[in-house]
Amino acid sequence: MRIGVLGAGQLGRMLALAGYPLAKTFVFYDLSGSPSVGIGEVIVDRDGRYLDDFLSRVDRVTYEFEHLPVEVAEKIAAEKPVYPSPRALQVCQNREAEKTLFGELGIPTPQWKIATCADSLKKAAEELGCPVVAKSNTEGYDGKGQAVLRSPEEAAEAWKSIGHPRLIVEKFVEFSREVSMIAARAEDGDIAFYPMAENTHHEGILRYSIAPAPGLSPDTRSEAERYIRALLSELDYVGVLTLELFETENGLVANEMAPRVHNSGHWTIEGASTSQFENHIRAVSGHALGDTAARGVSCMINIIGEHGDIDSILRLPYAHVHLYDKGERPGRKLGHINILADSYEELVWRVRNCAEFLPGSPEFSCSLTRG
Amino acid sequence: MRIGVLGAGQLGRMLALAGYPLAKTFVFYDLSGSPSVGIGEVIVDRDGRYLDDFLSRVDRVTYEFEHLPVEVAEKIAAEKPVYPSPRALQVCQNREAEKTLFGELGIPTPQWKIATCADSLKKAAEELGCPVVAKSNTEGYDGKGQAVLRSPEEAAEAWKSIGHPRLIVEKFVEFSREVSMIAARAEDGDIAFYPMAENTHHEGILRYSIAPAPGLSPDTRSEAERYIRALLSELDYVGVLTLELFETENGLVANEMAPRVHNSGHWTIEGASTSQFENHIRAVSGHALGDTAARGVSCMINIIGEHGDIDSILRLPYAHVHLYDKGERPGRKLGHINILADSYEELVWRVRNCAEFLPGSPEFSCSLTRG
Repeated sequence: MRIGVLGAGQLGRMLALAGYPLAKTFVFYDLSGSPSVGIGEVIVDRDGRYLDDFLSRVDRVTYEFEHLPVEVAEKIAAEKPVYPSPRALQVCQNREAEKTLFGELGIPTPQWKIATCADSLKKAAEELGCPVVAKSNTEGYDGKGQAVLRSPEEAAEAWKSIGHPRLIVEKFVEFSREVSMIAARAEDGDIAFYPMAENTHHEGILRYSIAPAPGLSPDTRSEAERYIRALLSELDYVGVLTLELFETENGLVANEMAPRVHNSGHWTIEGASTSQFENHIRAVSGHALGDTAARGVSCMINIIGEHGDIDSILRLPYAHVHLYDKGERPGRKLGHINILADSYEELVWRVRNCAEFLPGSPEFSCSLTRG
Repeated sequence: MRIGVLGAGQLGRMLALAGYPLAKTFVFYDLSGSPSVGIGEVIVDRDGRYLDDFLSRVDRVTYEFEHLPVEVAEKIAAEKPVYPSPRALQVCQNREAEKTLFGELGIPTPQWKIATCADSLKKAAEELGCPVVAKSNTEGYDGKGQAVLRSPEEAAEAWKSIGHPRLIVEKFVEFSREVSMIAARAEDGDIAFYPMAENTHHEGILRYSIAPAPGLSPDTRSEAERYIRALLSELDYVGVLTLELFETENGLVANEMAPRVHNSGHWTIEGASTSQFENHIRAVSGHALGDTAARGVSCMINIIGEHGDIDSILRLPYAHVHLYDKGERPGRKLGHINILADSYEELVWRVRNCAEFLPGSPEFSCSLTRG
């Protein structure tokens, strides 16, 4: 089966690496002009002139990047099966639509309002109570297009700095940690849930994911499963879906979702029986889902901006190196390391050892290290 | 780093799948005219006209197939580093040279003689005592170019059926099972040994490999490590080397070696911390070797000739499917399934369950099932 992937970055690369052993082949459709996938066939098409050519070469289509025009996905869906459906894409591209859907499905979110000018941003901040986070309603990711308002007086400046005509303003949530739930849904409706991950961000970029999230109560896990199941069913979803959540004193609060494999699921390559990448390919191809159970405990460390001392990391018997073969640039995701262990205690010092060789890494901090 | 691979079959495919995460890229050099690798760049060159072109595109060279002219490997070695060295290739292509080297290094082999005509084959059979196995001295693999002689009188017929001007004649060895030792040696001389595998052949083709080999005594393991260490050192070897052995009442007896990753090491993809493919790429690239420890117990089942019911196999939570994306043909290796378990008991029934979906598979038999 020939799988077409919209986008041609590291997620596409890892999808292909997981898909080749299932006898899938890959064609990547790149709208950015800077594909980094490094394997498979790549069609670079900045002007949208080669879409028909792309479609003639594939049997099914999926994506690794959700910031592409919904019209493109819809046009494709008229010709070939697209998983997940363009509707999932549409919802994930629009924070207002996403929060509205969460609300309809009974998934708690931070209180939110829409702002369409500096004045309405100020008013929203006043009504919600600061601090609030203002985010561009569309096109934002990895912490871009966001501003925190400590007081309503900062509205004018924040409005200017974001530079977007429609913002979503969210009341700041007091949370103990950020977690994510990744699940896959097959064509026949079968759903497989991964163990949840605990995620640590730094400067808006994910740095560490530990899975299974330590000390997670069974109730919290059931709650997350209920939420993502509701989303998967409502969207008649096929493939891997990620739901980012805050853990708070009053239960889980949804932050956002991503209609694809996710950075916080990279630990699954060695840390789970079947990786998120393989399960996405299985779902998109119409196969049964693979076992999602964890193999020991894992931590994924992102390599951001510079590679550090990879040769030394390759000497660590518990480290698995995954490079994306990209050039160094501040803030750029260049690869990740999966650290495996049999216990969380062991995991913590292994992660610290490894992070020593990654000069840009923030100090390792998570619920385990905070005691 | 750009790695050139001589040969373009499934071993090259799995080398590439393991090498991409280490930011390696691959160019395959195919002399057969029928590459099946399916990834990377492939240079098909039946007449040897594009060797310079191939060399200009790679930094280091290795192989996945040892039956290529040693002159080609030597010509390449004059231009670019080749790992393992052409000498290893030369020894492995010539059973007489191989057995001689084994003898020099104190590695036991079956008693053997050379035959250069039907008469000398008959004489060898008489002197060694039947049954004997006659094999073409060069160019044989997967049981091709071989004949078993039950009596010296079968010499004329065997000579004709093999059709090769120089045969090696080996006394039949009474063995309890076939095992293999796979080890990797780094540029700096560091060696890593994999747990040994127990191998079951059917009609000259490997069908099942179980690892770690059940019930292996520590002494037997040390013996195998000593033998392969002697070979790795003598050949100043860089990369993965495989040594096939018979386990007998009087200890291990070497059958043959392969200067590459090996079918009996495919279980390492999910069954070991670092796969044989990754360790070969690490060695060839000058990196440190990765941990070779087993993760649980594994059985590799080869998919031979026809694919069977892959969709049902994908439903088995303990099965990992590795397809080579090749067309069906009797006796052809089309892929393999790695079965994982926590105990041998569990492994046996899991393998049996899986084999149900592979119609061409012989009944699962190994030291575990023979009680």
